Amino acid sequence: MSAELQSAVVGATGYSGQELTRILFQHPRMKPPLLLSRETDDGSAPGEIISPVDGTAVPIHPFSWRLLHQRGVDLLYLATPHEISRQWVPEAIARGLRVIDLSGAWRLRTHQYAAVYGFKDIGSPASDALQEKALYGLPELCRDRLPDAQLVANPGCYPTSAILALAPLLQSGLLDVDHGVVCDSKSGVSGAGKSPTQQTHFVETAENFRAYSAFTHRHTGEILEQLQLAPAQLAFSTHLLPIRRGILSSIYAHLKRPVTASELEELIRDFYARSPFVRVFAPPRLPEVQHSQHSNFCDIGWVLAPDGKRLMLVSCLDNLIKGAGGQAVQNMNLMYGWDEREGLVPVPETRSRFPRAAYVSAATQASYAAGAIH
Amino acid sequence: MSAELQSAVVGATGYSGQELTRILFQHPRMKPPLLLSRETDDGSAPGEIISPVDGTAVPIHPFSWRLLHQRGVDLLYLATPHEISRQWVPEAIARGLRVIDLSGAWRLRTHQYAAVYGFKDIGSPASDALQEKALYGLPELCRDRLPDAQLVANPGCYPTSAILALAPLLQSGLLDVDHGVVCDSKSGVSGAGKSPTQQTHFVETAENFRAYSAFTHRHTGEILEQLQLAPAQLAFSTHLLPIRRGILSSIYAHLKRPVTASELEELIRDFYARSPFVRVFAPPRLPEVQHSQHSNFCDIGWVLAPDGKRLMLVSCLDNLIKGAGGQAVQNMNLMYGWDEREGLVPVPETRSRFPRAAYVSAATQASYAAGAIH
Amino acid sequence: MSAELQSAVVGATGYSGQELTRILFQHPRMKPPLLLSRETDDGSAPGEIISPVDGTAVPIHPFSWRLLHQRGVDLLYLATPHEISRQWVPEAIARGLRVIDLSGAWRLRTHQYAAVYGFKDIGSPASDALQEKALYGLPELCRDRLPDAQLVANPGCYPTSAILALAPLLQSGLLDVDHGVVCDSKSGVSGAGKSPTQQTHFVETAENFRAYSAFTHRHTGEILEQLQLAPAQLAFSTHLLPIRRGILSSIYAHLKRPVTASELEELIRDFYARSPFVRVFAPPRLPEVQHSQHSNFCDIGWVLAPDGKRLMLVSCLDNLIKGAGGQAVQNMNLMYGWDEREGLVPVPETRSRFPRAAYVSAATQASYAAGAIH
Amino acid sequence: MSAELQSAVVGATGYSGQELTRILFQHPRMKPPLLLSRETDDGSAPGEIISPVDGTAVPIHPFSWRLLHQRGVDLLYLATPHEISRQWVPEAIARGLRVIDLSGAWRLRTHQYAAVYGFKDIGSPASDALQEKALYGLPELCRDRLPDAQLVANPGCYPTSAILALAPLLQSGLLDVDHGVVCDSKSGVSGAGKSPTQQTHFVETAENFRAYSAFTHRHTGEILEQLQLAPAQLAFSTHLLPIRRGILSSIYAHLKRPVTASELEELIRDFYARSPFVRVFAPPRLPEVQHSQHSNFCDIGWVLAPDGKRLMLVSCLDNLIKGAGGQAVQNMNLMYGWDEREGLVPVPETRSRFPRAAYVSAATQASYAAGAIH
Repeated sequence: MSAELQSAVVGATGYSGQELTRILFQHPRMKPPLLLSRETDDGSAPGEIISPVDGTAVPIHPFSWRLLHQRGVDLLYLATPHEISRQWVPEAIARGLRVIDLSGAWRLRTHQYAAVYGFKDIGSPASDALQEKALYGLPELCRDRLPDAQLVANPGCYPTSAILALAPLLQSGLLDVDHGVVCDSKSGVSGAGKSPTQQTHFVETAENFRAYSAFTHRHTGEILEQLQLAPAQLAFSTHLLPIRRGILSSIYAHLKRPVTASELEELIRDFYARSPFVRVFAPPRLPEVQHSQHSNFCDIGWVLAPDGKRLMLVSCLDNLIKGAGGQAVQNMNLMYGWDEREGLVPVPETRSRFPRAAYVSAATQASYAAGAIH
Repeated sequence: MSAELQSAVVGATGYSGQELTRILFQHPRMKPPLLLSRETDDGSAPGEIISPVDGTAVPIHPFSWRLLHQRGVDLLYLATPHEISRQWVPEAIARGLRVIDLSGAWRLRTHQYAAVYGFKDIGSPASDALQEKALYGLPELCRDRLPDAQLVANPGCYPTSAILALAPLLQSGLLDVDHGVVCDSKSGVSGAGKSPTQQTHFVETAENFRAYSAFTHRHTGEILEQLQLAPAQLAFSTHLLPIRRGILSSIYAHLKRPVTASELEELIRDFYARSPFVRVFAPPRLPEVQHSQHSNFCDIGWVLAPDGKRLMLVSCLDNLIKGAGGQAVQNMNLMYGWDEREGLVPVPETRSRFPRAAYVSAATQASYAAGAIH
Repeated sequence: MSAELQSAVVGATGYSGQELTRILFQHPRMKPPLLLSRETDDGSAPGEIISPVDGTAVPIHPFSWRLLHQRGVDLLYLATPHEISRQWVPEAIARGLRVIDLSGAWRLRTHQYAAVYGFKDIGSPASDALQEKALYGLPELCRDRLPDAQLVANPGCYPTSAILALAPLLQSGLLDVDHGVVCDSKSGVSGAGKSPTQQTHFVETAENFRAYSAFTHRHTGEILEQLQLAPAQLAFSTHLLPIRRGILSSIYAHLKRPVTASELEELIRDFYARSPFVRVFAPPRLPEVQHSQHSNFCDIGWVLAPDGKRLMLVSCLDNLIKGAGGQAVQNMNLMYGWDEREGLVPVPETRSRFPRAAYVSAATQASYAAGAIH
Repeated sequence: MSAELQSAVVGATGYSGQELTRILFQHPRMKPPLLLSRETDDGSAPGEIISPVDGTAVPIHPFSWRLLHQRGVDLLYLATPHEISRQWVPEAIARGLRVIDLSGAWRLRTHQYAAVYGFKDIGSPASDALQEKALYGLPELCRDRLPDAQLVANPGCYPTSAILALAPLLQSGLLDVDHGVVCDSKSGVSGAGKSPTQQTHFVETAENFRAYSAFTHRHTGEILEQLQLAPAQLAFSTHLLPIRRGILSSIYAHLKRPVTASELEELIRDFYARSPFVRVFAPPRLPEVQHSQHSNFCDIGWVLAPDGKRLMLVSCLDNLIKGAGGQAVQNMNLMYGWDEREGLVPVPETRSRFPRAAYVSAATQASYAAGAIH
């Protein structure tokens, strides 16, 4: 197998962009990505990063469409602020590039939800058409549509944790949607970005914990759209954990009828039988943030109340990988018809040895989660 | 004013007992507390602690009823495992001592809820009578009954945060109890006690976050009893924060009718107008764990959904102070007819300067919380 | 005893200023301090803080000499950048105010050492005269000169830890100065100030540790001057700990002749016999950062090599209290002839009960440090 | 290339054993390692771990020599307490196995230094002979002897950081050995092992920092032997950092004559020109703990005093990888004649693309260290 795809990354120096770039440099199907800075060509040198593969300097070029063309770039990653993505994607699409956008620029179809981003072109025919073209790239839910996608809106980190936990219950029709769902999410500080602020100052964050953006977080629209919920059916709140990376969402739901533990487990395992990056934790084990740190896994567990009708789901992932750069690569793998695990897991030489994760026993999964051991 | 009360503390070396003892040594109404170890008198010396006031060694004596009598102890603090408290309280009461028990031994009236503690005497006439005598010592809700109490069951740390947040809504009749309440609580590691375990190992806790005991935490019964809720009306879960101390509870509730922001604020402020240790944070400010660390405050804030009917309450406190040792002293102050703030806040020489906290403006309260500053 | 002294604080909102102000509001000898902002009076309102005593708002006034005069301010605290202190102190002194400056503006007599601060007036007769007037306010070493001081240069946090550890050995003549001393210091992040930077971003600091400013830290000159060392006799380096507050310095020294453990202990204990804020830890105990957090103590311990000639000293303190705001208050207490512990320790009603700390046994001191317990 | 080597691991569930096993499962030259528990075969099942490659359960077998033989094990890893290693290695060697021992059992030749481990066979002809056979496996210093080694004593984590930093200076003859060296080392909590103790309790470690074992740490002998120093020439102390993993050593040394910055840099770079796992940081950059976490790199930087004769070296590594499991694999690679990077770095498909790290520019190295970026 030889490297075949030339990609480019705009925004390789933010936290998400760093993880994305690190993965791309080690991806067996990829040529080293072309790195571009948001600043357009004015003669200055935007800098360089160091290849995580071989320690050599890799230059970051000023962004130019001409350079993309010269280098034969087929796939453009945008790890840029949403305003930039909103502005650049139309031309990228017009030029025939495939685009994976890590920002919130093209995730939302509902004008009202998109309004929180303040785009001025909301509702214009051109942006509506482009929005129509965009695929919300949660691979576990849109795997079959990715090969044809030209524009993939990479999901937000919080929505990935919420949607993956709730999707099996919603699809099964078991969820009592009318009762409403509470999603109490907690994230590490890298989710707040790399720019230093009072909120990310060590002294204000360490040995502390706080809630923010209840009912108003701009990720709320994504969750509502993807799960087809009405605003009144979701209470979504976010909190800042004194850790560097990782998200844990505690999700409270009511079922339409009581279920047994095994029925629930089977439902969730079946839903994710084809999904190597969702690990299912049956009770009494629950996923912890540390289980999925530095990986592309989303871990899902749950506790069923004694009445069999109420449920807490627990969903964990690494906000910079499954919540950003890793999920972007997973989307790419599926867009190009490759094994979705390429570049994202340690893959042995003989690839066929890799099993389907879904039929591992619950006890084994629990041990897996613990990193070990009875 | 001269020191007047002789108390004794059993269990001064655990995390809660340490905080309790530290406060008692500095309390202007108290003689230095007599310190006792759980081990009864067998001639060995159980050790000593150092006075936080003057650095001198204070011996810890083997427990003996005779010693309590000789020293003129009037009030006995039990910072002991619940089995010990369950066993010792009957004799202490019979001997005429007043008792503040920091364990869960006497908090629960419902036999079924108390059963999680595994006491063998549940339902016996003697223990039922003693349980009847015990006052659940959440001072904000039982202030007027404390002067007559002989046995005070000091509340659990989690229940204190949950009950204080919900009490105003329940009393007002606004809470839609039938919809059910979700209480998603998070605690620092000192809540797990001083004995080292795999769960409290630094490597397993730092840069991590996990849920535990959803629907089954033994504090659930306290919350249900005090708020007069049925089990199906409460989803209570707990999580372990990578911090040393502090609790934040995120509580999700529905109201029977939409309210305005000011109506809600007034309701909560009025409820706590007489309560110097409850600080009310009006939106957009929310309490953070760091605001109440090392203090006896319980800070309460909220976010009202745009529909005016759904609510997230945020409640913060220091699990070792307002959640344990400080609350015990607050109970004592009221039992003996003193200002409930004695020994718990910096009190200036001219005590009359101390204002009623309830009429401080919302903006001021918010700044207070921030430790500062516009 | 009634409050008697009116002070003013410029810079009450930085980390050091916050601690200073908190202590002053609770100090039994002080009227509430007048709070001033660096910005001079232009009609805007610089804000307010909340009294830690009673929760009321305390305004921060624009700085004006007229206001200082009107309010009868006798003592001015400057918790300001060193450029501001360098600029304002001459006029304050000329107006007859007493000044405690928490910055580095007036700590250094050697022009070469002071040059690292970049002051343009170094070497001018006026600034030299004022520098001559300034007292380096490490109270343990200058206790007797403080009553007459008009300008006190409050020491840096790192120098306080280094100087207090080494002073007994230097005074005794035991230290082999020619061999040179290594001082490897580590500080929590609050030492880097409140302004958010890449260096104080949680993600860059948590689960990390780094060295900085070896041989070049601007605190080096203070240590050299106070200990009368030549530059070649000190290797001083600093490191950033992933904690909020606290300093630990590990100091390596050679002695001119072998000593016994008890000789060394006696030497250090005697040196600090009059110093209630220095706690001496005899082996095998060593101070830890947590022992002195949130206090004005400097804790000193040591390990003697088997040869009796080499020594590691360990010195711990809270960089915001003994390293800044608390030490400033300790200086004030001595300037005004009060007990140096006023406002800095829990003092019982009957003040005479407070013992001399120096005669507490080593074992007791060790327990004290541990916060407890055998 | 097909997997060729069968190894076995005793102790796969400790922190070092976990990292070792994780690396071996992903190593392209290795069959999956046979996992063994310390308990010998009594019929009980010691448990299982989960393959980090494919999520399947991998059993942990009771230890038996017969099983090693049946499975064709050629290389035995011991991640066991030193008493166990001391006891088992003689038979393993006698049976013709190659052994990499991660404990301190066979690292020390000097009986006096080895005595700190309390072995009863010290000085016996058999153990002396075996000790003679053992190679102290710091690959950067013994690369050429590893192909012939049967018994490799894998170095301690602290000594690896100290020895690698000092070796270039010692070899060059520049180090003023008689002046003595100070090595002030700091380690994350995983270095204290997985068993929960009061010392590793989160509440006692977070927001804290402490020194321990100055002059007496049992790793001291390794450093002395490998660097051929006398005890009086080294002051070695250790500290506990509130982080999960990583070591930073600050090392203070005097040179026999002044050197220039470029002379020093060239000396160190040349020394490690063949060493892909030592990264050299020229001033003004210094390595930080986070640069080498989760990697097999040892990063070395320095600050030269203005006099050109005094030096602080800074050395960082991950105590579980370069300080334990990764170094063990690096040793194995060299024992079997493979590229020492196999299984330890992301290696692209075309392995020849991997450059020699030594000729990367200083600026590039600095960026590499930062994980990025100008």
